[in-house]
Amino acid sequence: MKDFRVSKDDELSLTQQLVNGICRWIEARRIRPGTRLPSIRQLARDKQVSHSRVIEAYERLVSLGILESRQGKGFFLAEPLAAQSDDAADTPQVNDASWQPLTQPSQDRLNLCCGWIPDAWREPQVVGFAIRQVTRTDPDSLFSYSSPLGLPLLRQQIQQRLERMDVRVGHEQILTTQGVSHAMDLLVRSLLKPGDCVLVESPGYPNLFNLLQAAGVRLLSISRTQDGPDIRRLEALLQEHRPRCLFINSMYHNPTGTSLRPATAHRLLQLAEIHDFHIIEDDTYADLHNGAGIRLASLDSQNRVIYVASFSKTLSGSLRVGYLVSSADQVRRLAQFKSVTSLGTSRFVESVVATLLGNGAYRKLLQRLRERLDKAMAQTLRHLEAYGWETFAEPVGGMFVWARCAPFGFARLNQVAAACGVMLSSGDAYYLDGQDSDWIRINVAYADDPRATAFFERLAAERDRQPGLKCSAAGDSGYSLSAAD
Amino acid sequence: MKDFRVSKDDELSLTQQLVNGICRWIEARRIRPGTRLPSIRQLARDKQVSHSRVIEAYERLVSLGILESRQGKGFFLAEPLAAQSDDAADTPQVNDASWQPLTQPSQDRLNLCCGWIPDAWREPQVVGFAIRQVTRTDPDSLFSYSSPLGLPLLRQQIQQRLERMDVRVGHEQILTTQGVSHAMDLLVRSLLKPGDCVLVESPGYPNLFNLLQAAGVRLLSISRTQDGPDIRRLEALLQEHRPRCLFINSMYHNPTGTSLRPATAHRLLQLAEIHDFHIIEDDTYADLHNGAGIRLASLDSQNRVIYVASFSKTLSGSLRVGYLVSSADQVRRLAQFKSVTSLGTSRFVESVVATLLGNGAYRKLLQRLRERLDKAMAQTLRHLEAYGWETFAEPVGGMFVWARCAPFGFARLNQVAAACGVMLSSGDAYYLDGQDSDWIRINVAYADDPRATAFFERLAAERDRQPGLKCSAAGDSGYSLSAAD
Repeated sequence: MKDFRVSKDDELSLTQQLVNGICRWIEARRIRPGTRLPSIRQLARDKQVSHSRVIEAYERLVSLGILESRQGKGFFLAEPLAAQSDDAADTPQVNDASWQPLTQPSQDRLNLCCGWIPDAWREPQVVGFAIRQVTRTDPDSLFSYSSPLGLPLLRQQIQQRLERMDVRVGHEQILTTQGVSHAMDLLVRSLLKPGDCVLVESPGYPNLFNLLQAAGVRLLSISRTQDGPDIRRLEALLQEHRPRCLFINSMYHNPTGTSLRPATAHRLLQLAEIHDFHIIEDDTYADLHNGAGIRLASLDSQNRVIYVASFSKTLSGSLRVGYLVSSADQVRRLAQFKSVTSLGTSRFVESVVATLLGNGAYRKLLQRLRERLDKAMAQTLRHLEAYGWETFAEPVGGMFVWARCAPFGFARLNQVAAACGVMLSSGDAYYLDGQDSDWIRINVAYADDPRATAFFERLAAERDRQPGLKCSAAGDSGYSLSAAD
Repeated sequence: MKDFRVSKDDELSLTQQLVNGICRWIEARRIRPGTRLPSIRQLARDKQVSHSRVIEAYERLVSLGILESRQGKGFFLAEPLAAQSDDAADTPQVNDASWQPLTQPSQDRLNLCCGWIPDAWREPQVVGFAIRQVTRTDPDSLFSYSSPLGLPLLRQQIQQRLERMDVRVGHEQILTTQGVSHAMDLLVRSLLKPGDCVLVESPGYPNLFNLLQAAGVRLLSISRTQDGPDIRRLEALLQEHRPRCLFINSMYHNPTGTSLRPATAHRLLQLAEIHDFHIIEDDTYADLHNGAGIRLASLDSQNRVIYVASFSKTLSGSLRVGYLVSSADQVRRLAQFKSVTSLGTSRFVESVVATLLGNGAYRKLLQRLRERLDKAMAQTLRHLEAYGWETFAEPVGGMFVWARCAPFGFARLNQVAAACGVMLSSGDAYYLDGQDSDWIRINVAYADDPRATAFFERLAAERDRQPGLKCSAAGDSGYSLSAAD
């Protein structure tokens, strides 16, 4: 525990300094529950304080539920630790597979289904540079409230980025939000009322289902196909229902990784016109896009599309910066709502993102990230094929492959994964009706980890041992399909 | 415009570098609308680029609405500037005096009624130190999503602070939010439904009125007296209505600056028990408190009080960190709602605040801030008395004095203020019914500015000139009252 010092000159008591220092040490080193803390004697010697100080500090931490004392054995990190008591006992009972990966300690297991890039791909020096620059040179961003629409400089940068994607809008049509979920919440609150009917894709994003269900909205589901939402099903639903809007991922759909075909996109807009509904285009994975791709917002000339995106998947999920694009009138109403419900977003983090967009660092970071993801995607698809997995589609980019490995259901996949040190999330939550699913969402950025490889190999071996089943190295997907049915 | 350089080696075009650089310069130097920009020739020479590059950049800025070109005279900062087009034209039409000061350019006028501390009182080195420390040492806070309840280390620090105020709660009873408004929004959404009836103080916080009205809730107002809400009026209302909750500031009420008397606090809790309603104690100004003071949350033993506070008034309004305290069950439900509606708060800014709380810097910063405010409060009360203003009460601390200067109504106050370079906000918005008010909220931190002094003097002189009216230097408040009626 060399990370901290205690001093009599500090205004905090020695005990409190010890308590704070130990907490920081636990957080910084990601100490695991059950780990034994240094003995009282040892810590007292290290920090040059009396034994009674250390005992007091340890006891305070026990009373906080952070440590536990085991008779005659010493003090141990409690299970659940304060950090994890949020993350396990206190975790909201949300019908959402994505929460588990968000909130469970993953340091010991490979989180193969998670929705973010690996630690090693993060670029702390790039983000840190912008943070230091804003901190040093922009005291207003450090201290002042933001204006209702969000930092003008950031909105101008976003406008330029949109223009490069052929989405031409004025800066008054852009509203910054605390991320995509916040944008969705503002939209749901301002566009929908209980009992309204909306269209969602299934499989789709579980947190969106939760948000809409919390708003008392009726959800109609459309299957996601390789080309986008199932247009026939959509047309049939539109004969009977009058939905207010359709929620969709155009590019790199979560969880299937599929992207809209141009003809599907065009037809969607036609249907939105004819049946008078809005399309809410969630482009969370926009910036992972490498090359040509279709966005409804770029095709739209009738203000049918409300576009939503964020910097959470590329820069940082912690900063909480996203935005939405709609008509100027709508944006003005949403800005009012944003102000009343949160006094606005953080000018500081918006200025950090604007700095990264303005100085070209974001563009370069994206280049590196896309190259890594493209490589990982190609490799993962090869591996999955070799190990006899079935993929829903071959994504042209992004982070996710939706795949299954017949004849195994999720329970067995998860057992084998756990034995290999891999954590999986069930695909069930991605279906609106929570149906049993043998599909899982694989994050390609983690798929070449040795633990993932061990998982794939062990599963293939297990299948080979089953009578009548054999894993072809060439990936006999027809075969595995029939075994799955 | 020495703040930036352009280079052919940059991946952005020279024109775009100019555009970005000029925008940063405008923001950093707070250039005022109508200011003439450097001539094309001069900027081209400074930046060693061709004239056509500068023309292109200026024209792009014109097309963005940031500059305007005046025939034969050059380029000028447009009115409204992009920054201010949000802040004026795009500003939500919110019935809230506090928005104007939030969003209007104030660099040229003294914002005497605003709700934050002066630039010169900010402590960028203290906040900057914590930001750099988190950026350098805590990559998880820089990149990862937060857990639903908020950063455990911050919640532990908050728990300790509450304990020093005699509010004893477990860490599972604390939920971090994006500030007090966000906390209020979560509470309103989870506790209230349209048609429910709630109690608010009037005068009171306009944004709270807006939030409750947006939620379709019926508002019953109770006058704020020097001792807290008018208990007789409250008792009378409780004979006829069944309110779900009462919203209140215990300490340093906004806008009157008054604090609860212990007997009032005790009676409020009794009434909440008898009539089965919750009290939502908004303690936004908690940390400006210097010495003894009463909180409902510290008296409460029956889970009647939900406590809400933030670091916006002391550390930074930009970081957006606040919290609420309630029963563990309630907090768990609110955490779920927080997750679904925003995927959680920013771990980065929470870690910055936890650092400042943990290393003692926040406590020292508060000490300095309180000393400044106490001095400013005493001086402002002296000045107001000398200039013949009537004060609603003599606040024991905090930021605000609620005052009026008979016989002048707001319109005349505002005219004189404008002539002295002072910006005022009308007191009307603080009343639930938007009644005409001659009271204004004075922020004592700005009251010794020469522009404020000029305003007070000029007003006193004007009163002296009016027949039958005379400004007594000793502050004959009975006299000015009679003139006002």
